[in-house]
Amino acid sequence: MSKTNKLKIFNDPIYGFITIPNTLIFDLIEHPYFQRLRHITQMGLSSMVYPGAHHTRFHHALGCMYLMQKAVRVLRFKGVSINETEEQALYIAILLHDIGHGPFSHTLEGFFLPTISHEAISLRYMEALNKEFDGNLSEAISVFKNGHPREFLYQLISSQLDMDRLDYLKRDSFYTGVVEGSINSDRLIAMLHVKNDELLIEEKGIYSIEKFLLSRRFMYWQVYLHKTGLIAERLLKRVLQRAREILKQNIPLNATKNLLFLLEERAINKDELETYLPAFTAIDDHDIWSAIKDWQQHDDFILSSLSKMLIQRNLPRVELTDKPFSKEQITEIKDRTQKIKGIDESNINYFIFSGKVSNHAYDRTNGGIKVLLKNGTVKEWLSVDTQFNSTALTEPSVKYFLAYPKGI
Amino acid sequence: MSKTNKLKIFNDPIYGFITIPNTLIFDLIEHPYFQRLRHITQMGLSSMVYPGAHHTRFHHALGCMYLMQKAVRVLRFKGVSINETEEQALYIAILLHDIGHGPFSHTLEGFFLPTISHEAISLRYMEALNKEFDGNLSEAISVFKNGHPREFLYQLISSQLDMDRLDYLKRDSFYTGVVEGSINSDRLIAMLHVKNDELLIEEKGIYSIEKFLLSRRFMYWQVYLHKTGLIAERLLKRVLQRAREILKQNIPLNATKNLLFLLEERAINKDELETYLPAFTAIDDHDIWSAIKDWQQHDDFILSSLSKMLIQRNLPRVELTDKPFSKEQITEIKDRTQKIKGIDESNINYFIFSGKVSNHAYDRTNGGIKVLLKNGTVKEWLSVDTQFNSTALTEPSVKYFLAYPKGI
Amino acid sequence: MSKTNKLKIFNDPIYGFITIPNTLIFDLIEHPYFQRLRHITQMGLSSMVYPGAHHTRFHHALGCMYLMQKAVRVLRFKGVSINETEEQALYIAILLHDIGHGPFSHTLEGFFLPTISHEAISLRYMEALNKEFDGNLSEAISVFKNGHPREFLYQLISSQLDMDRLDYLKRDSFYTGVVEGSINSDRLIAMLHVKNDELLIEEKGIYSIEKFLLSRRFMYWQVYLHKTGLIAERLLKRVLQRAREILKQNIPLNATKNLLFLLEERAINKDELETYLPAFTAIDDHDIWSAIKDWQQHDDFILSSLSKMLIQRNLPRVELTDKPFSKEQITEIKDRTQKIKGIDESNINYFIFSGKVSNHAYDRTNGGIKVLLKNGTVKEWLSVDTQFNSTALTEPSVKYFLAYPKGI
Amino acid sequence: MSKTNKLKIFNDPIYGFITIPNTLIFDLIEHPYFQRLRHITQMGLSSMVYPGAHHTRFHHALGCMYLMQKAVRVLRFKGVSINETEEQALYIAILLHDIGHGPFSHTLEGFFLPTISHEAISLRYMEALNKEFDGNLSEAISVFKNGHPREFLYQLISSQLDMDRLDYLKRDSFYTGVVEGSINSDRLIAMLHVKNDELLIEEKGIYSIEKFLLSRRFMYWQVYLHKTGLIAERLLKRVLQRAREILKQNIPLNATKNLLFLLEERAINKDELETYLPAFTAIDDHDIWSAIKDWQQHDDFILSSLSKMLIQRNLPRVELTDKPFSKEQITEIKDRTQKIKGIDESNINYFIFSGKVSNHAYDRTNGGIKVLLKNGTVKEWLSVDTQFNSTALTEPSVKYFLAYPKGI
Repeated sequence: MSKTNKLKIFNDPIYGFITIPNTLIFDLIEHPYFQRLRHITQMGLSSMVYPGAHHTRFHHALGCMYLMQKAVRVLRFKGVSINETEEQALYIAILLHDIGHGPFSHTLEGFFLPTISHEAISLRYMEALNKEFDGNLSEAISVFKNGHPREFLYQLISSQLDMDRLDYLKRDSFYTGVVEGSINSDRLIAMLHVKNDELLIEEKGIYSIEKFLLSRRFMYWQVYLHKTGLIAERLLKRVLQRAREILKQNIPLNATKNLLFLLEERAINKDELETYLPAFTAIDDHDIWSAIKDWQQHDDFILSSLSKMLIQRNLPRVELTDKPFSKEQITEIKDRTQKIKGIDESNINYFIFSGKVSNHAYDRTNGGIKVLLKNGTVKEWLSVDTQFNSTALTEPSVKYFLAYPKGI
Repeated sequence: MSKTNKLKIFNDPIYGFITIPNTLIFDLIEHPYFQRLRHITQMGLSSMVYPGAHHTRFHHALGCMYLMQKAVRVLRFKGVSINETEEQALYIAILLHDIGHGPFSHTLEGFFLPTISHEAISLRYMEALNKEFDGNLSEAISVFKNGHPREFLYQLISSQLDMDRLDYLKRDSFYTGVVEGSINSDRLIAMLHVKNDELLIEEKGIYSIEKFLLSRRFMYWQVYLHKTGLIAERLLKRVLQRAREILKQNIPLNATKNLLFLLEERAINKDELETYLPAFTAIDDHDIWSAIKDWQQHDDFILSSLSKMLIQRNLPRVELTDKPFSKEQITEIKDRTQKIKGIDESNINYFIFSGKVSNHAYDRTNGGIKVLLKNGTVKEWLSVDTQFNSTALTEPSVKYFLAYPKGI
Repeated sequence: MSKTNKLKIFNDPIYGFITIPNTLIFDLIEHPYFQRLRHITQMGLSSMVYPGAHHTRFHHALGCMYLMQKAVRVLRFKGVSINETEEQALYIAILLHDIGHGPFSHTLEGFFLPTISHEAISLRYMEALNKEFDGNLSEAISVFKNGHPREFLYQLISSQLDMDRLDYLKRDSFYTGVVEGSINSDRLIAMLHVKNDELLIEEKGIYSIEKFLLSRRFMYWQVYLHKTGLIAERLLKRVLQRAREILKQNIPLNATKNLLFLLEERAINKDELETYLPAFTAIDDHDIWSAIKDWQQHDDFILSSLSKMLIQRNLPRVELTDKPFSKEQITEIKDRTQKIKGIDESNINYFIFSGKVSNHAYDRTNGGIKVLLKNGTVKEWLSVDTQFNSTALTEPSVKYFLAYPKGI
Repeated sequence: MSKTNKLKIFNDPIYGFITIPNTLIFDLIEHPYFQRLRHITQMGLSSMVYPGAHHTRFHHALGCMYLMQKAVRVLRFKGVSINETEEQALYIAILLHDIGHGPFSHTLEGFFLPTISHEAISLRYMEALNKEFDGNLSEAISVFKNGHPREFLYQLISSQLDMDRLDYLKRDSFYTGVVEGSINSDRLIAMLHVKNDELLIEEKGIYSIEKFLLSRRFMYWQVYLHKTGLIAERLLKRVLQRAREILKQNIPLNATKNLLFLLEERAINKDELETYLPAFTAIDDHDIWSAIKDWQQHDDFILSSLSKMLIQRNLPRVELTDKPFSKEQITEIKDRTQKIKGIDESNINYFIFSGKVSNHAYDRTNGGIKVLLKNGTVKEWLSVDTQFNSTALTEPSVKYFLAYPKGI
């Protein structure tokens, strides 16, 4: 294939056109590891609440790379030197930063490969690709691991103002139709600056930070922690957990080969990763969905009940409050459910969900977001935007949920 | 559940909010037949070309209903009488018009249930729902079958200006990011009128019709008939066709139970439909994708090769031209492929694709689009917009394709 | 003109189509009092900072009416009874709520008719129209004056969640391109409710209120109180002030007749309004702009200098800080300006601007925004959204500015 | 001012941010010649039909420059060499291409300075600026005059695919809310190429050209030639024409000094331009509007009547048809108007409007749009897109109008 053919363009409903900057990037996108992301939904089960939210990790990764191209252009325009190797490292690192995600992204993170984060898996893939592409990913890996001497490169990949957040907030807001969550990634990027290799926001951007953090908070309450989506995701985990227990009892279960393998066993520490990675690489959302559809007819009452609830979207009723539910409340609801639904005590925990969720818009530890003042000094954002003292941002907001079958 | 709880709202990135008008509609949406559409992609394999195009039949059906609510409001404002029964029939008929679609929508239409259109299947589902809901769908079914005395009701469901087209062109354009395909459904609806129970467009809307038809033509060439998507879809059918042949030879194959059943046998005429409908109802895109992923490792060389091409997006190279390819050209490419790829003659047709596609923007037969002139008379659109005589609209445009493995 | 011809539609880049609900509304829009708003810019001199911000009070008024139509539909759907007279009163009152604005809207409010608010002038126009339209505006006037027994009608016209704010924040954000200021007026309206004739927001809307208030705060800092726009507006007032002084000295000045009349004299109390209203009705932005362009060549050095600064957009340099400027700082800058620019002491105050601006996102007095809890009780918003305790919303934020000619 | 301060950013509701590429461009934008465009509306009187259409030549010029920056980036990415001097020339030439427009842009073109096109006036301004900026505009002037050896530079400024059209169609569609007129300027630019210094569109862009031309055709019928806007513009010219005649009779008339001067006399040939240019430079939309408002009270019945019709938007009734009106029809309407309105014969032509308008979407003369085929050859567009043979594009469509006072 000629070089020119590889200078491909992707359509994006959000940004218009995303241009592939060079042939290595093109080849990485063509690679099966990356193509696999086409089948991994960005937002887990949020589409059960927001029917437009079917976008994938594939598209998100391209979007991040697009924003990174903007950021490089802006920073160079302001006189920040970024050489071509660093530029390429930024594109590769952001393109691949989420390549380690598995089915349903965060929803099932830690389920198949517990104790191993998606970032750690991303790194494994990147190392494998580095071998395949003759070491051309080395600088990207160094940036991704925060091993590069110029820290802002890492901060563009991973920080409170990284290209990841700037894309996912915008993209998730767009596809859900929750327009209040939209952020002006253009303006935020236009206000980035670098001093002493540290990523900064210009002083005139302090209100943009307010809005950015509030949009994030809004998306958490309204979307990511939406009570229905929340319960659907926990229900999904219980279905898979039940499947695991059934397999332990040597009761047969339909599923794709790789999914069965991962349900039967799982990596507990990083060293085992190589054993499980091929199966993990092979599965995506489709394996899970088609298995659960099948399990609706399984002989195990728990498994079939939970599977039906998910597939037919007959979800538990959820209460979400600012205060924890008392033990008595939970016991009372369990008792009632046992009686009305005829579920025995040993299994009641499959049908009652309780727990808490937390929403932390701004993390001041690790320095927070740094502002470049007009006078040239650097200060943490909240110590500049002193009027904006809301603990709604700086402290985690916690909510408690209790869910139980409909009709209770 | 209280009545009020059912007055639900769906978020839509395109229209903002879609309101459920009443509890029957709510219950139909909650029904497993309809929930199933959440897992059936609207645009087949177009997401392989346009990565944003993951929207579903579920969302499209809701969108159509939203536009129908607008149309009813506009027509009543203009003095067209539509009683509540008719209104409800319109909402139900448009909501369920595509409920008979199976995996990948049009792409696989006729594959599992050949000789039976998706509309005929929709009708079966509607009849089943009518029983379940005590005959409350009867008027909707009458409209859907074009059996209602007031023809415009049917035309709002199915005609060259129906709510289906008004939604899918807008929606597909939106999610692909091909903004040129977008139409102004608002203006088109605002210009609808009814006279003698016939659906008409007001005279001042004639240029809007031009634009509408051109957008449609554009979407066909740029999206629906995009050469890469086209080949991916034909490749998908060949994969399934090969799977069928393997099963005939009693060679085992992994797939979900229902998919296997449908691959082994299939309904040839409508009367058999009841036998096959449960399995058809049970499968969706996920069954197909997870099967094909598995088949990449199948012993059958053809099946595994084709499956890998699809999953890894290593698609054939396609040529698309205005003139048919000669027999010689096709023979020559087959010969070359046999040699280079080492595929024997009996199987070469799996790897070479040829055929034609056709794009017909405006169908003048059946009366075409009718215009209500300012003087009160009614005329066919092109006889009003006489300056716009393009055969690009009135005649089908045909293109020919030839596709073969990369490296030939 | 036939009734049907009056059922006109306006195009709106924001909402698509705005439909005129009936002929009385149509006739009000056609009236010269309302047509006059076509020449009164919504945002004063903001277009000097945001070049897209040329939208008018005319368009804003139509937009408010559109949102009111939505609100009526939503409330009725929820079972709130609103009869046709009340509905019409709402449309008229919101359509005309800003009809009393003069040139440059708020910027010059109180300049020509001091001590009389634009609402009071709106009321005068409404009363005049009521006579002309045979008393058909009586109910609207009662609502507008908050004299109607059902208070929520007034609250839809004027409160912290009125249709006015819902339109102007969205519209100003749209035309400036400051997308962070955009609000989801659709969701806010969808969450309105009425209980005991009081306008409420449903509990699930509390985060939407957060976002709404933060957008408002953002628009104030970034747009309405943008330091450049701020100074341009104060400069405009000084130009007019200087013109007034020149006229007092019987020095001739070019301007349109009505503008001259208003510069020479002005209503000080409401009773005089009738004398000045015809001239006030006759002037709009154009009179001011064409006068100031002319004054660039006036013999008076102060007038010509200030006029040139405005027309050529050679605006003073502005500093904006959290702390007041000291007397010493101001004196020092005045001294420097006198020397460098050769301006004598008596006139220096024309060229130095100092003062403060204040941004108060949420006013808790008068009850604030009321929330309808799921349990049916009503509470003030911040006492529900207890985590969101920011004084950035509840207390006015104050900033201080000091501006002086470039080159100082 | 420091260099950095000049690297300003403009907000644009359409493109987001428009960046000023360097200080010379910044200084040109700051210049009074360019600032003047803030007060010249892009679309004449279209805002009387589309209330959002208040955008200015100022914003359009910035938008064109933004698109030019994109075009330069795309072409360089494809290997077309454009040196820095050429780049700067492109930015300056497109920024200033419309600087010669006067009040109401095209509407009054040729009225004050007949026989001199706005391009010729633009050139005069550019030459004046070239002196002021030490010859730094020489290359831009050469491009603007089509005197540069590399023709594609000129074609980017002025051709059927120039940045001017790409911006104005998008911008006018955006501000009017006529979304059907919107074009995908991004895709069109992405498909530009250059061969032998000629501007070409890549073969895969042929359907984009269809859509582009149809959007243009749509905008002409729906917006630029909208019958109400059309008549408003002709009415405006008659008002000014009448004012001229009154001045000839030495009857006094209120207006700004410069407008009076231009109404009394006018440049007939280019050599006189210097005499009239200062007054022409001084006037903008505001002078015209404030004069006409005043003329509503003028003693001359014709002038006051026409002025009132325009200001109060009491516009003539218009018929628009495909066939010319007969002499008899026109005579009949004149007679009726004389009788009913009491207008004497000598003045009847002020109140009756007849004429024709023409809409020519694609001009094949001068070579039309050139397509770069995949095989490397270059052909005219319609000879490639052979299916699209509509004379609606290639031939001018003509319509005839007849307008007369309401009540006739």
